[in-house]
Amino acid sequence: MSSLEVVWSDLVRHRQDFADFHLRKAFAEDPARFDRYSAQMDECLTLDYSRNYVNDKTLLLLENLLLQAGVAERFQDMKSGVAINNTENRSVLHIALRGSVSDDLQVNGQMVAADINAVKNRLYAFAEGVRDGSIAASDGKPFTDVVNIGIGGSDLGPHMVTRALAAFHDGPNVHFVSNVDGAHMGDTLKLLDPARTLFLVASKTFTTQETMTNARAAKAWLVSALGDDAVGAHFAALSTNKEGVEGFGISSERMFEFWDWVGGRYSVWSAIGLPVMIAIGPDGFEDFLAGANAMDEHFGTAPFRENIPMLLAALGLWYRNVWSCSSMAVLPYDQRLEYFSAFLQQLDMESNGKRVRRDGSDILRATGPVIWGAAGTNGQHAFYQELHQGHDIIPCEFMVAANPTDADTGQHELLLSNCFAQVEALAMGRTEEEARAQLLASGKSEDAAALLAPHKVFPGNRPSSLLFYDQLTPKMLGRLIALYEQKVFVQGVVWGINSYDQWGVELGKELANKLAPAVKSAERGEGDPAILDRLKAYRMV
Amino acid sequence: MSSLEVVWSDLVRHRQDFADFHLRKAFAEDPARFDRYSAQMDECLTLDYSRNYVNDKTLLLLENLLLQAGVAERFQDMKSGVAINNTENRSVLHIALRGSVSDDLQVNGQMVAADINAVKNRLYAFAEGVRDGSIAASDGKPFTDVVNIGIGGSDLGPHMVTRALAAFHDGPNVHFVSNVDGAHMGDTLKLLDPARTLFLVASKTFTTQETMTNARAAKAWLVSALGDDAVGAHFAALSTNKEGVEGFGISSERMFEFWDWVGGRYSVWSAIGLPVMIAIGPDGFEDFLAGANAMDEHFGTAPFRENIPMLLAALGLWYRNVWSCSSMAVLPYDQRLEYFSAFLQQLDMESNGKRVRRDGSDILRATGPVIWGAAGTNGQHAFYQELHQGHDIIPCEFMVAANPTDADTGQHELLLSNCFAQVEALAMGRTEEEARAQLLASGKSEDAAALLAPHKVFPGNRPSSLLFYDQLTPKMLGRLIALYEQKVFVQGVVWGINSYDQWGVELGKELANKLAPAVKSAERGEGDPAILDRLKAYRMV
Repeated sequence: MSSLEVVWSDLVRHRQDFADFHLRKAFAEDPARFDRYSAQMDECLTLDYSRNYVNDKTLLLLENLLLQAGVAERFQDMKSGVAINNTENRSVLHIALRGSVSDDLQVNGQMVAADINAVKNRLYAFAEGVRDGSIAASDGKPFTDVVNIGIGGSDLGPHMVTRALAAFHDGPNVHFVSNVDGAHMGDTLKLLDPARTLFLVASKTFTTQETMTNARAAKAWLVSALGDDAVGAHFAALSTNKEGVEGFGISSERMFEFWDWVGGRYSVWSAIGLPVMIAIGPDGFEDFLAGANAMDEHFGTAPFRENIPMLLAALGLWYRNVWSCSSMAVLPYDQRLEYFSAFLQQLDMESNGKRVRRDGSDILRATGPVIWGAAGTNGQHAFYQELHQGHDIIPCEFMVAANPTDADTGQHELLLSNCFAQVEALAMGRTEEEARAQLLASGKSEDAAALLAPHKVFPGNRPSSLLFYDQLTPKMLGRLIALYEQKVFVQGVVWGINSYDQWGVELGKELANKLAPAVKSAERGEGDPAILDRLKAYRMV
Repeated sequence: MSSLEVVWSDLVRHRQDFADFHLRKAFAEDPARFDRYSAQMDECLTLDYSRNYVNDKTLLLLENLLLQAGVAERFQDMKSGVAINNTENRSVLHIALRGSVSDDLQVNGQMVAADINAVKNRLYAFAEGVRDGSIAASDGKPFTDVVNIGIGGSDLGPHMVTRALAAFHDGPNVHFVSNVDGAHMGDTLKLLDPARTLFLVASKTFTTQETMTNARAAKAWLVSALGDDAVGAHFAALSTNKEGVEGFGISSERMFEFWDWVGGRYSVWSAIGLPVMIAIGPDGFEDFLAGANAMDEHFGTAPFRENIPMLLAALGLWYRNVWSCSSMAVLPYDQRLEYFSAFLQQLDMESNGKRVRRDGSDILRATGPVIWGAAGTNGQHAFYQELHQGHDIIPCEFMVAANPTDADTGQHELLLSNCFAQVEALAMGRTEEEARAQLLASGKSEDAAALLAPHKVFPGNRPSSLLFYDQLTPKMLGRLIALYEQKVFVQGVVWGINSYDQWGVELGKELANKLAPAVKSAERGEGDPAILDRLKAYRMV
C-alpha cells in the first residue's frame, strides 16, 4: 500500500472516533473550540471551521494526507512552469497573471511575466479609453453599454465578478450573453442602442459555436443599424486566433490574447477580465489581482492549520471520501454573489469531475462532489428545509462580510444575524424534548405537542464552515476566488487528477455537430433514430 | 412487512437484473425502445424516458409501488379538501386555483371556487388597470415599472414564470427584490423613477422579515421623492393580514388575499401571480392556469405508462432509493428557463427534504434528493464534464421546445442538436477502443493514443429523461410546473411525507431573532460565543 493509501485507511478508521460525536456536545465540552479550529489571513479573512467533524487527530491525519500526496511539491511544479496539464502538455500558469511566479520564468522560450504585462498594458489602455470616451463609437461619442459574448470560462468568471463588484462600478454598463438560445442575445439587444454599444467577443479559438453564433447575430444587428463600417469601432476580441478575428472584421489592435497555459475556468485574471476592467477600472482590477496574489502567498507559506485553502480542501476530501457526502452547498450571504455558486460549479466540477488519474488509471474512490447553492437569505426560504431535516448530510460553506459595501447597515445586520443563526442551527439542532417543551409553553395540549414534536426536531450535528471577511472589495474577491482555485488544486493533487483538462465535454460537442444537419434539414441524418422520429412527429424534419 | 415494503424489496432485488445492462446495448437490441418507453400528452408534450434503467418489469414494479402507497386515493383526498397537510391541519388546494376541483367544494364552510373567482376578478381588473393606465401613479400617468417584493414562494414562482414568458410580455417592466441584503433593493431602485414605479408587497402574514424590511426601504425611497400621500397609489399587497396592510398605508381595496390551503411554493397560481398577470395580461394568465388544469386532468386519469408526472416520480424513487443517487440535475435548453432549477429546488427540497413521516415516525430510507441545474447550452461549458466522466451517476431531466417563441430559428436548431447530442452522449458513451481509433485516425502515434485514450473514455449508461414540447407558451409552462408539483406529491405519498409543511425552516428563524440584538448593539447577546468573539474582533460589537 502506498503511504498515501495508508493515510486514507487511517482516516477511514478514524471515522469510528466520531460514533458518539455531536457538535452540540463538542462545543459544550470545549468552549475554546472556535479558537482551536479557525484560521485567519491578513486580519480581514477568517475561516471558522469549528462546526465540522474534526478534532486534533483529524487535522494531523488530513495534514499528512496532503503531505503524502505532495501538494507542496506540485505547487512548486505549477510555479516553475512544469507541464502539469499532462494530457495537453501544457503549463498551468493562471497564477502568473496575478504575479505569483518569478519575473524571469520562461516557458517554451516565452518570458511569461513580460508577455503578461505587455498585454495587460494594452488591456488597461483600452479599458481606460472606453471609460473616458477616448475610445468611442463610430459616431465619435462614448459607449454607454458593453456586451461580453462568451460562454463557460469566458462568461461565468467575468459575469460573477462584475456583478459582485457592483458597488465599485464607475464605467459603462456591462451585459453578458452566453447561451446559443437566440432569446439570450435577443432579450439583451432589446434594451440597447447600437450606436452606443461595444461588443467583446471572448473565445480563445474564435470558433466556439455559441459565441461565434451570437457574435454574428450581434454584428448583423449592428450593421443593419449603422452599416458595415461601424464593425471595427464597435467590436473587440479576447482571443488568440488572429486570422479568425481579422476575418470577422476586428483589427488585430483590438485583439487581446492569452496563452495556452490559462484554462478557461481560470481565465478571469487574463484578457477575459476586460469587462471587469471596463466596469471598475484598471486600479480596481489591480486590487483584484493583488488579492489573488496574497492568497497564493498565503497558500504557499502558511502552515496547514492556518492555511485556509488547504483546510477547506482537506475537509472536502474528508467528507467526500470518508463520510460519502456527494454534494456540497456554497451559501454566500450577499445578493451580489448570486452567481458565485454557478462559478464554483464550473471551477470545481469541470476540474475534478473525473474518473481517471493523470496516468489514465482508474480512480477507485469518489472525486469532485456536486457543488450547488444560492445567495442567503434567499436559500433559507427555499431549500434549507432539506439542509436541516433532510436525509443526507450536506456540508455547507457559508460566506459573509462583516460590513456592507454601499448597502444599508441596518439591513446588513439582519443578513449577518441570519447567517450566524443558520450555522448555529445546523450544528446545535433541537431535540424532541426541547421541541415538546416549546410546544407546551406555547399553549399546545400534551397530545398536540406529542404529535407535532417529531416534526420540529432538528438532528443538528450538520457540518458547516464559515468564511468571514471584512468587506467585499475587489481585493477580497480576488482572495476568495484564488482560495477556491487552490482548494480545487489541492483536491486534484490528492485524487491524482489532472484538474486542467476537460475531455468530458468533447463527445457531446462531436455529436451535436453530427446531429445539427439532421435537425437543420428534412433529410434523415445520423444519430439516434428515436430523436429523429420525434422531430418528425413535430414536423421538424 | 407491509405490502409497500414488499414492493420496495422486490425493486431492490430487481436491481440485480441490471448488472449487465448498458443503454448502448439496450438500444441496439431494441430499436423500438423509444416507442416502448415514452409517453405523450395533448400531442404537444412528450416524455422520452427510454434512456433510463428500465424494462417492462421495472415499470410493473414501480406502478405497483405507487398503487400500494395509495397515490390515487391521496389525490382524491387532496381534491376533496381533506386536511392532508396534517401537521398544520390544512387542506391542500392550490389545484383549485386552476379549476381542478369541483365547483361546489366547501372547506370549513368556505365555497372554494367562488372565493377564488371573486379574488381573481379583482386581480385581473387591477392588472388590466395597471396595463392600460387606468390604475395610475400619483401624478395620474401610467406606471412603467412594477417591483415585486417577496421571498421564497412569493418570489421564486412569479420570478421564474415572468422570465420564462418574456416573449409574451406586453405590460410594464417587472422586477423582483427578495434578499434582505440591502444591495438587492438598492441595485434595483437605482434603475427606477419613483414617479413611475408600483410596488407589490407579497407576504401572506405581512410579517416576513426580509419582505417587510425591503417594503419599508421602498416606502422610504418613494416618500422621500413623492411624499407620504403617494404611498396609497404606488403600493399594493398580496396578503391576508388586513390590519398589517392598512397599517403600512395600503387600502384594503389594494389587498389581494389567498388562503391557508395554498402553500408558498405552490402559490404562483394565486394572488402571488399578480406580477405575471401584469406582465402578460389576464388572458395569458388564464392560458397558464388552463395548462396546469390539463396536467391535473392528465395526472388524475392517464394510465401509469402514459402518466408523465407518475413516470418521472417513479423513476426518481427508483434512482434515489434503489440506486442511491443523491442528486438530480434539471437541464432546460431555454435561456428564459434560467430560474427553473432554482424554482424546482424549493418546490422539491422544501416539500420532501424531510426525515419523519406524517405520523412523526422516522423514515428509514433516503427522501428528497438535491435538485440542481442550469440552462443549456451553458451548463455544457461548466459542469457537464462531471455528468459525463464524474464518479457518481447523476440522473438528468432535460427539457427543450421543438420551436422557439420569438428567437431566431437557426439558433434554435443549434440548441436542439446540442440537447439531443447530450442525452445520446450520456447514454451511449465512448469506449477505450473507439477513443484510441479516433486518436490514431487523427494522426496521433500509438504511444500518444494509448496515453490519451483513457481520458477520452465516456462510460455512458448515464440515465436521463427528456421532456420535449412544441413551444414554451403560457399554457405549456402551466403544464410543466403542474407536472413537477404532482411529481413531488407522488414521491411524498410514497415516502409517507407531509409535503406541505416546512418545520425545518423554523429554528434558523428563531435563532436569527435571538441573535439580531447581539449583532445590532454593542451588548453581548445570546447565541454562539464564538460568533460574538468574531464580531468583536471586527469591532462589530
